[in-house]
Amino acid sequence: MEVNWIERPCRVVDRACEARALARQAMLTKPPGSLGALESAAVHLASLQGKDAPSLKNVWITVFAGDHGVAAEGVSAFPQAVTGEMVRNFARGGAAISVLARELGASLEVVNLGTVNDPGTCPGVRTVYLAPQTGNLAREAAMTDAQLAAALQAGADSVEAAHTADVQLFIAGDMGIANTTSATALACALLGESPQDMVGRGTGVDDAGLARKVAVVASALSLHADASDAREVLRRLGGFEIAAMVGAYIAAAQRGIPVLIDGFISSVAALAAVRLNPDSRCWMLFSHRSHERGHALVLAALAAKPLLDLQMRLGEASGAASAVPLLRLACALHNGMATFAEAGVSDGPA
Amino acid sequence: MEVNWIERPCRVVDRACEARALARQAMLTKPPGSLGALESAAVHLASLQGKDAPSLKNVWITVFAGDHGVAAEGVSAFPQAVTGEMVRNFARGGAAISVLARELGASLEVVNLGTVNDPGTCPGVRTVYLAPQTGNLAREAAMTDAQLAAALQAGADSVEAAHTADVQLFIAGDMGIANTTSATALACALLGESPQDMVGRGTGVDDAGLARKVAVVASALSLHADASDAREVLRRLGGFEIAAMVGAYIAAAQRGIPVLIDGFISSVAALAAVRLNPDSRCWMLFSHRSHERGHALVLAALAAKPLLDLQMRLGEASGAASAVPLLRLACALHNGMATFAEAGVSDGPA
Repeated sequence: MEVNWIERPCRVVDRACEARALARQAMLTKPPGSLGALESAAVHLASLQGKDAPSLKNVWITVFAGDHGVAAEGVSAFPQAVTGEMVRNFARGGAAISVLARELGASLEVVNLGTVNDPGTCPGVRTVYLAPQTGNLAREAAMTDAQLAAALQAGADSVEAAHTADVQLFIAGDMGIANTTSATALACALLGESPQDMVGRGTGVDDAGLARKVAVVASALSLHADASDAREVLRRLGGFEIAAMVGAYIAAAQRGIPVLIDGFISSVAALAAVRLNPDSRCWMLFSHRSHERGHALVLAALAAKPLLDLQMRLGEASGAASAVPLLRLACALHNGMATFAEAGVSDGPA
Repeated sequence: MEVNWIERPCRVVDRACEARALARQAMLTKPPGSLGALESAAVHLASLQGKDAPSLKNVWITVFAGDHGVAAEGVSAFPQAVTGEMVRNFARGGAAISVLARELGASLEVVNLGTVNDPGTCPGVRTVYLAPQTGNLAREAAMTDAQLAAALQAGADSVEAAHTADVQLFIAGDMGIANTTSATALACALLGESPQDMVGRGTGVDDAGLARKVAVVASALSLHADASDAREVLRRLGGFEIAAMVGAYIAAAQRGIPVLIDGFISSVAALAAVRLNPDSRCWMLFSHRSHERGHALVLAALAAKPLLDLQMRLGEASGAASAVPLLRLACALHNGMATFAEAGVSDGPA
């Protein structure tokens, strides 16, 4: 394993292609700007793909799963066994992301980094066993150095597989009971925000659960206040699946594959990726604004404007998958509309 | 032509089916409510279609086109010839809605109700010639009684064609230079709002054009202040294509076909439809929040929460078409996800 691959430069975005895409948008038979975010998405994809006709035919989705020691603090509405149960559900095709991937014709990979309830061998699931769960971040570091490195590498390995499959877009999703607690602690530490402003209800904890989450995050932040840099913050407060997403986002930017960020967990991983390798930001598109409370602050820190706001809060890459058809339509419009000249349409006052 | 068909009752929504859909959503392998608006859209479609497995395989789009006499007041950034030019562009496949319909596999019909620049006969265009343009609503009534009746009927005829084609969703779009002025005047009259709060830039008028639009709408409202009911307001301030959309929305509700409302023009037509036949509201889904200024007030009056907010402002049904994939995904999730019992996933604390 190469030690410092995380810091290797990201691919440079094709600004000439971006300029051509902007010029083409101005010639298409519509008032300038009238397709709104669909125009900017097409231009962005053209610049990232370095293609005058951007395409999202081949989309790759990896759901990273892992359990969290902090679940012991009673911070989730669901029992920890659900993580492993959902890995089986992903593999058998019954989960939301399974349905969405089928509808999109996208490749779906599941990477199990360690669950307390072992789902065993499932078709379509790659196992990268790190431990049954992370350490309880309220009382100790979530990961060892070796676990963090392996999780980052697991993400990069998924990107390599996607690259081999010649994909035009990489999506990472998460599954892990208690992972909003981990992501919230991580976001608070990276942004200097207080738990009161960031903690949300995750899969649906009640008021008592919410108060517990705030206390747990506050105590974790206090315990790990001496973490020296973003990598150390990620090691102490992150999760296996979150670290794998960080590795995937950075590797995709280095490979030149655009990534579509999902919801809260995914955006916190994106934030950590940008802190570890700032140029990775250029390769990120943002799919949706989650109902989870802390998401707005994380999006603002990333200057991200997601396409969708559907009050979704499921994770699993479900929000990102839901935005793929819009990006495909954006490409189709960019590539397929007639110009004013081609159509013989007046492009302004006579 | 039956005189009072507009007032015939709408089909009754299947509340038992709605209850079953709600119960199913609660059993699917996700935290309750975590798919947000995709859950409510699936439940809504199930109740309208009266099917436990809602589907949007067959989608029908009609773009209604017509010219507006009020264009003479200099209220648009584009010359009036564009309406006819765009009818040709729709037919030849170069317009945004042409591309979107192809991508969705949707039927696309264009109905030309009268344009100053006659596009002649085009394949895929149904001509229902009412006049080259409406009367200038700033100085006279936009339509005669006969023209209004014929426009409403043209919309109903498109719904009949869609019904014969066994569609599960009807979308109406608009094309007509100066039609934001007509729609704004109509919305002001129906809602009692002032032009200052409602007039927007349409396809992109400058500040002087915006001031002209405000003055034109104000003088039209003053001239037609004695209009006695919603039908008369529509006749005096509407447009051929707007009235056709009104007729289509009411006919679809009577036929029991869900409609997906597009942007500003379409929502004003929906508002007029609801004023003429209040139960038609049940059959409306709302696709997107337009960048056009007055849309927010119209949506609020309809208690409508659109799926998308992409700063689009093109019309032509482009916003509605962009939301179709989301509705299809909502149906696929509703129909295809495993329940907690089927997947062996814990559905709450042990």
